[in-house]
Amino acid sequence: MTQVFTSNDIDALDQRYRTNLINTLSGAKSANLVGTTGEHGDNLAIVNSVVHIGAHPPLMGMIMRPHSVRRDTLENIYATESYTLNQVALGWIDKAHQTSARYEQGVSEFDAVGLTAEYLAGHSSPFVAQSEVKIGLKLEDSVSIKANDTILIIGKVVLLQVSDNAVLADGSLDYTRLNTAAITGLDTYHALVQRDKLSYAKPDQTVESITV
Amino acid sequence: MTQVFTSNDIDALDQRYRTNLINTLSGAKSANLVGTTGEHGDNLAIVNSVVHIGAHPPLMGMIMRPHSVRRDTLENIYATESYTLNQVALGWIDKAHQTSARYEQGVSEFDAVGLTAEYLAGHSSPFVAQSEVKIGLKLEDSVSIKANDTILIIGKVVLLQVSDNAVLADGSLDYTRLNTAAITGLDTYHALVQRDKLSYAKPDQTVESITV
Repeated sequence: MTQVFTSNDIDALDQRYRTNLINTLSGAKSANLVGTTGEHGDNLAIVNSVVHIGAHPPLMGMIMRPHSVRRDTLENIYATESYTLNQVALGWIDKAHQTSARYEQGVSEFDAVGLTAEYLAGHSSPFVAQSEVKIGLKLEDSVSIKANDTILIIGKVVLLQVSDNAVLADGSLDYTRLNTAAITGLDTYHALVQRDKLSYAKPDQTVESITV
Repeated sequence: MTQVFTSNDIDALDQRYRTNLINTLSGAKSANLVGTTGEHGDNLAIVNSVVHIGAHPPLMGMIMRPHSVRRDTLENIYATESYTLNQVALGWIDKAHQTSARYEQGVSEFDAVGLTAEYLAGHSSPFVAQSEVKIGLKLEDSVSIKANDTILIIGKVVLLQVSDNAVLADGSLDYTRLNTAAITGLDTYHALVQRDKLSYAKPDQTVESITV
C-alpha cells in the first residue's frame, strides 16, 4: 500500500509537517559546517545543501536563504570571498546541530558549541579543528534562484586537508574510515555503512563490485 | 597526521584522481533516478546532485551537464516540463548504477537495466515502480551556472507517492524503514543507519534526542 499526495494535498498540509516532508524527500544529504570570519568575528553554521558542481575546475555549491533573520555567514562570504566547509563526524553531531541556534551577533558559534577554530596557512577563514575533512573555498559565483529568492553560492576548492589514509588509491575519500555523518531532513543524523563500490557502467556489460 | 592539497596540488593531479577526490569531498549524496519521456521514448538516468531548494513552495534542484554526449534527459525535461525523481533502494543499486551507461538513443534504460516504468494519474513522466519514494515534478526554472557551464534544474513537487508507514507523525520520511541508498563520489553506495534525531536548537539550551 502507498500514500499519495497531490499538489493540492501538499498545499493544504500544516506548514511544519510540509517542511519536514519536503525536506526529507531528497534522501541523504551531507552535513557540513561553514566557517567564516568578518567584522563581528568568526561564524560557524551547519548546512545540508552542499552539492557537487564540477571537478575541473573543482567547484562546490550550497543553497543559502538570504531572507532569514541571521545572515552573518552570507555577509562574511561576500565580504571576504572566503569560507570553509568542514565535514561533520558522528562523534559531535550534537555540537554541529547546536550551531543552528540563533545566537546574538558577535557570539562565535565555535565558542558557544565547543568546537575549535583552526587557521591553516594561506586561507583567511576558520576551519573546524575536529573535522577530518577540511575544505577551503574561494567565492566563485553567487546565483539568484528566483523561484523562492534563495541563492546558490559556488566556491572553488583552494585548500584541502584530510586525515592520513583517508584517500584511496583512485583519489576517492574512504568513507569506511571516515566517521562522516549524513543528514535527512533538518534534524536526523545517520552513519554511512558502505555496501558496494561499482564499476564504470557500459551498455554491453553488467556492473560489478570493485575494490581499489 | 594529515594530507594537504593546495590549489596548485589539485591542479596538478591526474584528471581521473582529481575527479574522484573532488566528487567525494561533499560527503553523503542522495541517489535518485530521473524519469522522463520524449520523442525517443522513455529515459531513466541516475543523479547524485539533487538538492533541497525550499518547502514553500515545494522545490527540488539538480545539477545537469548539458555538454555531455547524451542529453536525452535534459531535452525531455525542457520539451515536456515534466520529470520524476525516484529514490534508489539498496536492493537494486546495481540496476540504478547501470542507467549511467551510454545507451543508444531510442533504448529505454528501464528495459535495459530491468526496472519497471509506472505511470501515475495526472503526471506525464514515468516513475520507477520499484522505488518506495516516487516524486513527480514540474519544471519551474533552469538556471545557468557560468563557472563551468552546468545547469541547475529546479522542479516543483506536484505528486508524491510513498510506501505506507514511511511518513512519521511530524511529516518526515522514516529512514529507519526505507532502505534508501546514499552515494559518495560517483560509484560508492551506502546504507543509512540512523543515529539520532535532534531537537530544534536554541542558544540557551542543549540539543537533545527526540522521537516522534
